Amino acid sequence: MQTLIIVSHPTLADSNTQRFLWESLPAEGVTWHHLESVYPDGQIDREAEQQQLLQYDRIIFQFPFYWYSSPALLKQWQDVVLTEGFAYGSEGSRLAGKEFGLVLALGVNEREYQAGGREGFTISELTRPFQAMASKCSMVYLPTLVVSKFDYLSDSKKKELLISYQQYLSKENDASLTASENWFKLQLQSLGKAGLSEADQQLVEHLLAVLEDNREHLDDLAWTLAQMEGNQLG
Amino acid sequence: MQTLIIVSHPTLADSNTQRFLWESLPAEGVTWHHLESVYPDGQIDREAEQQQLLQYDRIIFQFPFYWYSSPALLKQWQDVVLTEGFAYGSEGSRLAGKEFGLVLALGVNEREYQAGGREGFTISELTRPFQAMASKCSMVYLPTLVVSKFDYLSDSKKKELLISYQQYLSKENDASLTASENWFKLQLQSLGKAGLSEADQQLVEHLLAVLEDNREHLDDLAWTLAQMEGNQLG
Repeated sequence: MQTLIIVSHPTLADSNTQRFLWESLPAEGVTWHHLESVYPDGQIDREAEQQQLLQYDRIIFQFPFYWYSSPALLKQWQDVVLTEGFAYGSEGSRLAGKEFGLVLALGVNEREYQAGGREGFTISELTRPFQAMASKCSMVYLPTLVVSKFDYLSDSKKKELLISYQQYLSKENDASLTASENWFKLQLQSLGKAGLSEADQQLVEHLLAVLEDNREHLDDLAWTLAQMEGNQLG
Repeated sequence: MQTLIIVSHPTLADSNTQRFLWESLPAEGVTWHHLESVYPDGQIDREAEQQQLLQYDRIIFQFPFYWYSSPALLKQWQDVVLTEGFAYGSEGSRLAGKEFGLVLALGVNEREYQAGGREGFTISELTRPFQAMASKCSMVYLPTLVVSKFDYLSDSKKKELLISYQQYLSKENDASLTASENWFKLQLQSLGKAGLSEADQQLVEHLLAVLEDNREHLDDLAWTLAQMEGNQLG
C-alpha cells in the first residue's frame, strides 16, 4: 500500500505533535507532503498535485484542528486540486476507490467534543465537510485518527500513538484480528532486516513464531467449532 | 442595528449572485467587507479586523460553498482574527451577544443537501464548524440564508430573494408577525424619503395604512379571544 500524507501546518517546526508523527513514519510506503513547505507563496500546482494523487492508494489529510477545520492552505489545496472532471463529475472520479482519512491534532481533550462538552459537537459532526468531500470523490472514508493534547501524553501513551499512527498509514482498513496480525508480522519482518543485535533478532523471530502458533491454534479451534456445529445440525 | 457582511469570493466580479446581493444592500446600517479585495496578498490585519468587529451588532459570513466550507481566505481570517483573549477564553468573549449568520451561495439545488440527495448531508450538518465557532465566541447563531442556483431563478424569485436578504441583514431575529410588520414599515418609511414619484408615494402610504389596519384588526381579535376565554373560565 502507498500512502500520501498531506500535512498542513503554518508553523510546523514549532509543533511537538507533528515532529513526533514525522519521526514515527514507517521506513517505506509513505510520502510526507507538507503544503506550507512546498508552497510558501500559497500558489498550488494543480497539475503536479493531481498527478501525485493518482500514485497513491490511501490519502491522508493531517493538520491541527483550527476553528473546527483545517488551516487555510489545505482548504486552498482542495479548491484548486479537486476539480470537476478530475475528482468528480459525469465521467466519474479519478480518485474512485482510494481510501481517505484524517489525522487531527487537538489542543483540548477529545472528550470535550460531545454534546455537553466544552466544544459541544463530536469530531464526526465537525468533520462532515471532509466526509462529504470523500463521498463526492467516490473515496472510502476511514475513521479519523485523533491526537489530543500530545504534550501531556505519558511515554507509554506516546508509544501507543506511534503504533496507532503507523497502522493508520499502512494497515488494511479491516478490523479483523488477522489484519492486525499481518500488519505486526510485516513490521517485525522489516525490523529483522535493519541490522538489529543478535539478541533482538532472536526476540523478533520468537515473536513471529508466537504469532504463527497463535494463528494455528485459532484455526484449529475454528475447525473444531465448525465440526461441532456440523454434528449438531446432522 | 449595524451589520458587517464579511464576503469571501476569489473571483467576485464573475459572480452574478454576489453582484445581485451587492445591488440589494439596504441604504444604511450595513458594511460590505470583501476580504479578497481588502487583502489581495492574503496578509490579514488582525488589529483592524478585531476593532471593526466590535462596531457591529450582527456579523455575516457570505461566500460560495466550496467543498462544503468557505474559500481559504475566510478560513485564514478566522485563524488570524478570532484569537484567544479576544473571541474566547477565560475572560470571556469580546463578541459575546452579537449575532452571527451565514449567507451561502450553492451551485446545486438545496434539496440535494439531505440524506439520499446527491450531496448526502444537510446544510445544517455541513456548517457545524461555523455553528461551533459562534458558540465558542458566545455569539447568537442565526438560521442560514441559502441562495441556490441563482442564475436559474425567475424574476419573482429574485425579488423574494432581495427581500429575504435585506431582512437577513437588518430584521430582528424574531419570527413574530409583529417583527416582520415592523421591518416592512421601516422599509416603506425609508422608501418614502427617497424621491419617489407622487403615485408611488401614495402607494407606500396606502400600504402603511393597510399594515396599520391589519394590526388593529388583529389586536381586536386577540382582545375578543381573551374576553371569551375569561368568560369560559369565569
